[in-house]
Amino acid sequence: MRRIRTIVVHDVAMPIRTAEEYIDSLRNRDLKVYLFGERVAEPVDHPVIRPSINAMAETYRLAETDPDLASAQSADGGRVNRFLHIATSPDDLVAQNRMQRRLGQITGTCFQRCVGMDAVNSLYSVTYEVDQAHQTPYHERFRRFLSHVQTENLVVGGAMTDAKGDRSKGPRDQADPDLFTRIVERRDDGVVIRGAKMHQTGCVNSHWLIVMPTIRLGPGDEDYAIVAAIKVDNPGLTFIYGRQSGDTRAMEPGAADAGNAQYSGQEAIIVMDDVFVPNEHIFMRGETEFAAPLVERFTNYHRRSYVCKTGVGDVVIGAAACIADYNGVAKASHIKDKLVEMTHLNETIYGAGMAASHEAHQRPAGNYEPDAMLANVCKHNVTRFPYELGRLAQDLAGGLMATMPSHREFDSPETGPLLKKFLTVREGVPVEDRRRMLRLIENMTMGRNAVGYLTESTHGAGSPQAQRIQIGRAMDVAGKIDLAKRLAGIDSDDD
Amino acid sequence: MRRIRTIVVHDVAMPIRTAEEYIDSLRNRDLKVYLFGERVAEPVDHPVIRPSINAMAETYRLAETDPDLASAQSADGGRVNRFLHIATSPDDLVAQNRMQRRLGQITGTCFQRCVGMDAVNSLYSVTYEVDQAHQTPYHERFRRFLSHVQTENLVVGGAMTDAKGDRSKGPRDQADPDLFTRIVERRDDGVVIRGAKMHQTGCVNSHWLIVMPTIRLGPGDEDYAIVAAIKVDNPGLTFIYGRQSGDTRAMEPGAADAGNAQYSGQEAIIVMDDVFVPNEHIFMRGETEFAAPLVERFTNYHRRSYVCKTGVGDVVIGAAACIADYNGVAKASHIKDKLVEMTHLNETIYGAGMAASHEAHQRPAGNYEPDAMLANVCKHNVTRFPYELGRLAQDLAGGLMATMPSHREFDSPETGPLLKKFLTVREGVPVEDRRRMLRLIENMTMGRNAVGYLTESTHGAGSPQAQRIQIGRAMDVAGKIDLAKRLAGIDSDDD
Amino acid sequence: MRRIRTIVVHDVAMPIRTAEEYIDSLRNRDLKVYLFGERVAEPVDHPVIRPSINAMAETYRLAETDPDLASAQSADGGRVNRFLHIATSPDDLVAQNRMQRRLGQITGTCFQRCVGMDAVNSLYSVTYEVDQAHQTPYHERFRRFLSHVQTENLVVGGAMTDAKGDRSKGPRDQADPDLFTRIVERRDDGVVIRGAKMHQTGCVNSHWLIVMPTIRLGPGDEDYAIVAAIKVDNPGLTFIYGRQSGDTRAMEPGAADAGNAQYSGQEAIIVMDDVFVPNEHIFMRGETEFAAPLVERFTNYHRRSYVCKTGVGDVVIGAAACIADYNGVAKASHIKDKLVEMTHLNETIYGAGMAASHEAHQRPAGNYEPDAMLANVCKHNVTRFPYELGRLAQDLAGGLMATMPSHREFDSPETGPLLKKFLTVREGVPVEDRRRMLRLIENMTMGRNAVGYLTESTHGAGSPQAQRIQIGRAMDVAGKIDLAKRLAGIDSDDD
Amino acid sequence: MRRIRTIVVHDVAMPIRTAEEYIDSLRNRDLKVYLFGERVAEPVDHPVIRPSINAMAETYRLAETDPDLASAQSADGGRVNRFLHIATSPDDLVAQNRMQRRLGQITGTCFQRCVGMDAVNSLYSVTYEVDQAHQTPYHERFRRFLSHVQTENLVVGGAMTDAKGDRSKGPRDQADPDLFTRIVERRDDGVVIRGAKMHQTGCVNSHWLIVMPTIRLGPGDEDYAIVAAIKVDNPGLTFIYGRQSGDTRAMEPGAADAGNAQYSGQEAIIVMDDVFVPNEHIFMRGETEFAAPLVERFTNYHRRSYVCKTGVGDVVIGAAACIADYNGVAKASHIKDKLVEMTHLNETIYGAGMAASHEAHQRPAGNYEPDAMLANVCKHNVTRFPYELGRLAQDLAGGLMATMPSHREFDSPETGPLLKKFLTVREGVPVEDRRRMLRLIENMTMGRNAVGYLTESTHGAGSPQAQRIQIGRAMDVAGKIDLAKRLAGIDSDDD
Repeated sequence: MRRIRTIVVHDVAMPIRTAEEYIDSLRNRDLKVYLFGERVAEPVDHPVIRPSINAMAETYRLAETDPDLASAQSADGGRVNRFLHIATSPDDLVAQNRMQRRLGQITGTCFQRCVGMDAVNSLYSVTYEVDQAHQTPYHERFRRFLSHVQTENLVVGGAMTDAKGDRSKGPRDQADPDLFTRIVERRDDGVVIRGAKMHQTGCVNSHWLIVMPTIRLGPGDEDYAIVAAIKVDNPGLTFIYGRQSGDTRAMEPGAADAGNAQYSGQEAIIVMDDVFVPNEHIFMRGETEFAAPLVERFTNYHRRSYVCKTGVGDVVIGAAACIADYNGVAKASHIKDKLVEMTHLNETIYGAGMAASHEAHQRPAGNYEPDAMLANVCKHNVTRFPYELGRLAQDLAGGLMATMPSHREFDSPETGPLLKKFLTVREGVPVEDRRRMLRLIENMTMGRNAVGYLTESTHGAGSPQAQRIQIGRAMDVAGKIDLAKRLAGIDSDDD
Repeated sequence: MRRIRTIVVHDVAMPIRTAEEYIDSLRNRDLKVYLFGERVAEPVDHPVIRPSINAMAETYRLAETDPDLASAQSADGGRVNRFLHIATSPDDLVAQNRMQRRLGQITGTCFQRCVGMDAVNSLYSVTYEVDQAHQTPYHERFRRFLSHVQTENLVVGGAMTDAKGDRSKGPRDQADPDLFTRIVERRDDGVVIRGAKMHQTGCVNSHWLIVMPTIRLGPGDEDYAIVAAIKVDNPGLTFIYGRQSGDTRAMEPGAADAGNAQYSGQEAIIVMDDVFVPNEHIFMRGETEFAAPLVERFTNYHRRSYVCKTGVGDVVIGAAACIADYNGVAKASHIKDKLVEMTHLNETIYGAGMAASHEAHQRPAGNYEPDAMLANVCKHNVTRFPYELGRLAQDLAGGLMATMPSHREFDSPETGPLLKKFLTVREGVPVEDRRRMLRLIENMTMGRNAVGYLTESTHGAGSPQAQRIQIGRAMDVAGKIDLAKRLAGIDSDDD
Repeated sequence: MRRIRTIVVHDVAMPIRTAEEYIDSLRNRDLKVYLFGERVAEPVDHPVIRPSINAMAETYRLAETDPDLASAQSADGGRVNRFLHIATSPDDLVAQNRMQRRLGQITGTCFQRCVGMDAVNSLYSVTYEVDQAHQTPYHERFRRFLSHVQTENLVVGGAMTDAKGDRSKGPRDQADPDLFTRIVERRDDGVVIRGAKMHQTGCVNSHWLIVMPTIRLGPGDEDYAIVAAIKVDNPGLTFIYGRQSGDTRAMEPGAADAGNAQYSGQEAIIVMDDVFVPNEHIFMRGETEFAAPLVERFTNYHRRSYVCKTGVGDVVIGAAACIADYNGVAKASHIKDKLVEMTHLNETIYGAGMAASHEAHQRPAGNYEPDAMLANVCKHNVTRFPYELGRLAQDLAGGLMATMPSHREFDSPETGPLLKKFLTVREGVPVEDRRRMLRLIENMTMGRNAVGYLTESTHGAGSPQAQRIQIGRAMDVAGKIDLAKRLAGIDSDDD
Repeated sequence: MRRIRTIVVHDVAMPIRTAEEYIDSLRNRDLKVYLFGERVAEPVDHPVIRPSINAMAETYRLAETDPDLASAQSADGGRVNRFLHIATSPDDLVAQNRMQRRLGQITGTCFQRCVGMDAVNSLYSVTYEVDQAHQTPYHERFRRFLSHVQTENLVVGGAMTDAKGDRSKGPRDQADPDLFTRIVERRDDGVVIRGAKMHQTGCVNSHWLIVMPTIRLGPGDEDYAIVAAIKVDNPGLTFIYGRQSGDTRAMEPGAADAGNAQYSGQEAIIVMDDVFVPNEHIFMRGETEFAAPLVERFTNYHRRSYVCKTGVGDVVIGAAACIADYNGVAKASHIKDKLVEMTHLNETIYGAGMAASHEAHQRPAGNYEPDAMLANVCKHNVTRFPYELGRLAQDLAGGLMATMPSHREFDSPETGPLLKKFLTVREGVPVEDRRRMLRLIENMTMGRNAVGYLTESTHGAGSPQAQRIQIGRAMDVAGKIDLAKRLAGIDSDDD
């Protein structure tokens, strides 16, 4: 039953054209989603999950309202959602960044579709190169898959982060071999895989997942070198939904204390319990030496995708400016100066990300990839500056952000009038508006969307140290030493 | 009925000797406390409120278990809780800081009793000086009040922050004159006051509140120059309890996702609806020129009291170190280096706070007050460094901190075994412990106790700009210019 | 005599083709250059001045050795030095940045030719727009001038910064009206101007100077609204050369303690004592409303030109890495980590600068101008990060950088052998090389080229506050507030 | 001849009572001091060296003008210079810090007498404990020596830093065994030592040097475990004077561009060429296990001694404030804010240093030692904040600081009047004063005294990483983990 419906909705008939059709496409999939210890009957209607679906839906809506920004002409001729487009020029990559910033502004959180975009772009060149080396058929297969999801306009998630167990040990040295996703059975018509992917951003609201290895692999690790597309409603998948600070406010009537009632991110653990993948959806199988290039290329795309946080940062700055205005201090020099500092930091992130895209280079497969150094620098600033923006936003918000009573008090006959009297600020500002703006700042700096704005900024696309390692590799110490020796008048052959 | 019990417990018979007796002393007071839109029947038993009472209770427990640290010999001979003691030496102030750090370590949050300690210490000298100037009887009255609360071992809260309305206007220029607490009726036997105090840290769990003006006052502001002690169960008081990120986790069965299930802070808005205060509890009434000194002295004490956050910081550092150890990366150089940085920042706060206390000076009343410059410097670092410690703790925690499923999944027959399998880290670490430690970090960096560790660090005892103004006043630019001119060989009379 | 030679060299016959011809072109100009209280007979041969000429000469050499990088196809067909080229595409601006970084790497200091490049680019569009508004002939005149200097391949300096006197007052309110450069006589065939330009980077080694106003002007300020080209050997000009920390080391035999013996920056005060400028060299005269746009456009170009400091930063990083290697600690994790941090900061500057160029927009005159926000953000990071790179370089250098004996000791029979014995580090490193590398770091962080790397990074193209003002203007607070209101569910018409 | 005079001056007759007597005491010692490749006939009269002698002389002058601050009651009864006093209480250590800050304010540089103060204080307890362990006579010997220098009021330098060679190897693994100072001959009446001490702050202007080991030693390193007092005029010593940025400005007539013409630091390499030390001046000889405690205790004292830099910082702040005032912008909000930030950072250093002294603990020998954690934290902030103060001072100074012509121009008939005209700022400020103040800022941020304010702040008393290692050792990770586990509800016995 489920399968038939699914075929009707996703695979055959109607490509998704609107945000609403996208939301409808997620219904009735009978996913095994668990939240608060219970299986969720219909994720689309769950108040905690729905805001993350709404955020993803904006990627469809923007393609409707601003097609130049959020869709692209594919190589094969059709107009496709930009999240499904392979970048064939630096401008394509730059357009991704612009779209990401805009969606950050629209949702105030993570809209969850970048992982897939960056996964398909990196797989495009990697599959090509694997084929060149091994006469494998991955690239053609991958293009067919891509053409399908483009035509149907589906959401593809990229699943990379394994459970990893003891971080001081590799895949084969773990007590439990499943702590890194692996092939447990090789068949003529496909493989069976087992494992789990952590912190999966945007999965319950996706149509497909592409599973990829998470670290450098070597000889002997063949079972871990698996790249495969799996449909989200595959019965072998279990989704265990992650909690977020303040998540249950979405379940309170009216969600009036949610801060950002419409949008949120989504993170889940995906357990793959012996999932069969047919050959046509396998894009790497055992070519271990390509695991590291895949991870590295993916991060080249994805670390610069964190430009999205500058869109979220725009909201944080706007919220801070708004509350200062409400308080009647918008013109104080120290207030203005803090807004300038927030903007400076936010645009510094944007600069590095945009530069990474503009400075892209072409791969033999024909597509373009961002500059590695600048992409890493962009992301590394993302692991720092949003915390500083958050701190400054809290500074401008005032303590009330964290001490404000429940919205239910405002409707209470006993306490409502008292709050309206005593929370009044400058003339013309409804207390209700002040309350809402403070809840938004709370939401973004220590509530639900702080997960997306802060923690994900640290750990998404690799933790800070991962960027430092990449910067260290790319920094060309030897070349810089030569520059210095020349100016110091030192013969470079001395040592 | 209530009144009789209250008299028995607080006013006459039995001083509070233990943490348990303290908790009992709070029962049956018929306070008007509102939370989530409803009046709370018994705050002591409310799962959201109770952790804040537990935190305060530790101030009693520490006086039992470590009396040298948490009690003191009063001038009048008796042994009193240190929070009720007037500092008569720099060592007394230093001992406060030690006690504060220890209680921060014990509770991992704000234990809420410092405001009162700092209020009574600043009032001790201010009332003395008002009397010198105006032949008023405030100091003697205040000492009688103090002796009472010392003997009975009661919690005294200090209530300073007014509603303030339009921040660009003073008390008398507000559309509503009540936006700053004021005298609305002067009688022979006392005064009637009206207004509200915001962000009141520790009030529902206090026995007395001391109301104080919040800003510099001048001629014409006499009605706002009121200092008075009010019993917490005064029927004219309404307490509207503040929400916190993730507060309702305390209401979930077992509170297993609370992170720190035992302890939290407490913030409420206190509305004073025409509260009568008898003369014996009035410690300032109209002497406007003493409002600014009172505020400034209070901040001298209170800004250095933020040394408590180094105790909380110790917990944050410990949690970050623990989770790195669980992950098997405790010896990685970048992990070690981040722990060193966190410690360095934490101890930098401690250094300035301790120095402020050691460098105290004596007031004419005989008591000691911390150094103003160093107290402000201490607090100003508190408005910055905890955010950096929080960021680094999140870095070490890994993304799972913000994406971990509900504790209920761990008990579920469907998902529990999956989580136990895939969240395993290094050998010997129960998944349960990893879960708990991550929840603690979440609690302190973006959950309930982030209010105390981050937001309160910014706004408590005055927002960052308030410290900058005080540092600016104390920085002696003219003296420093003279030093520079002498070395530059410039005659100081030149200009 | 002088005049004749000058005509031969610059104005008629031979365009400058090589670095050597450039240096020759500077000889025998009879400039009034003062240094250490004396008139300099021939600046080209003065040991303190020569390194700045060498640095400028590299802009010619690079055009020879790497013409793609350092020259461009002009609109009129010829190949011209890129410093004289009008950017007609974003790629032209990006190419400027690449060239700037390369020259920073080659010289380790300021090579001084950017001010002129940025001046001609901003004048190109401003003169066009003045003409549109006032039917003036400036744009055509300017293009003729430009064609001349392109053909002859001359160095053009841009002179903007006035003396400014009391910073709290405007040009007409100064006690001395000459504190801002002004027209003192208007004639049919031209104007006579008087004033001084401060901190003139690259002037004694230029062929032409373009004088421009330094601030926003208004009605009544017509005399100050003057843009004019003046030949450097105009007899009305006096150049008073600026000192630099450690400048006289260049005068010590062998300049062996200079650190960077070949290259330095150059800053002088230029006094214009009633200089006559013929009409053909006047590009603005009294159109006060265009002063502000000129200044702002110039800063849009020039603030992003500070990408040059990333080339200098490459040298600083290389020197720090080299000395760590000499000391035998190149592999220590904290050393590696500091090099990564230096690189991260350096590339963050680069990212914002490159993004500003890539994100250029076209002016009605047809040329391209960098993005204002990103250009300001680039420069603002330049006012911060080089100091941090300098600090880290000093950290890695070790104390010997600032305590090393004179190079003359190393040749001394008494002390030379002792130093060779005791300054030995790891095997294979000549003590001589260690000495030279340490002197280079000293040169760049507290010696002569620290002026270019640090102080000029702060003040060139406007002090930090100038960038903050521009960022504040461009940050679109209202738009960001609207984003926040939408997410908070606030009706924007509320207030 | 020399020896006789020396005996007369130092050893027998007249204790030094004044700054002038101190300077006289340095004459005619026939030291082997080399500077710029030549032996210096009389260091006292050398213009480059004299400012460092003047700085040291202020330690004598302050003892005259403010004996409470700069002298102390010794245990044996006499009044001694505080730099020679053994701290027998926390207050003694605090008084050191106060004196250090004051001398930093007076000299604007390093006054060079702290190393000896901290050396004698650490040796006091270490010699005591060596004797307890080995029945050696060091403590008594040391006290006799101390009594002598106290009575005669002599300057004692502490010489710790060895040449160290390849930093990846220990003393015995170096190609040249002399790269760490060592005993080359053991005799009944003493030892002969050989080696060199680097970066010796204050040596040519001292009377005695105490040589100490520089790192942890172990069995087999006995020859390197030597502590001994050597007279500065010992014929076996050679002093090779270190250069500083801008040092030769002191040799220009009038030293008018020196910035701080009166005072500077002093650093030299001391080569010990088989120096015989009699037993009475040997305070450790082969007790290797006490090398590490000696180094660590010395750094406990010395890292907190860097509070002196807050006195220098006061001058930097004053100079920045003065130049802003000259420019007419003293009241601009961003200027005020930068001065506040500078003060905040400066006082943060002071706080940690003072706290380290206040929180001292007593050693078995009876003397007091600062708190190790806080001392390291103090110094670690010193490695960061002065660079930020320097950056902000340069910001306020304006570019002229680094582009100002030579003082000789100001006296020139050609250029002097031009400079007086164009460098005029606000009314009432002589151009001469502006020039002097800018030279002072140059001196402290990139000139001669930047060595003391910046580089020495990084490397003196151990480089930044040395503090991080000590903080890492003292940070009690295990204890902090226990705090976190308790709050997370984790049984500590789990792992």
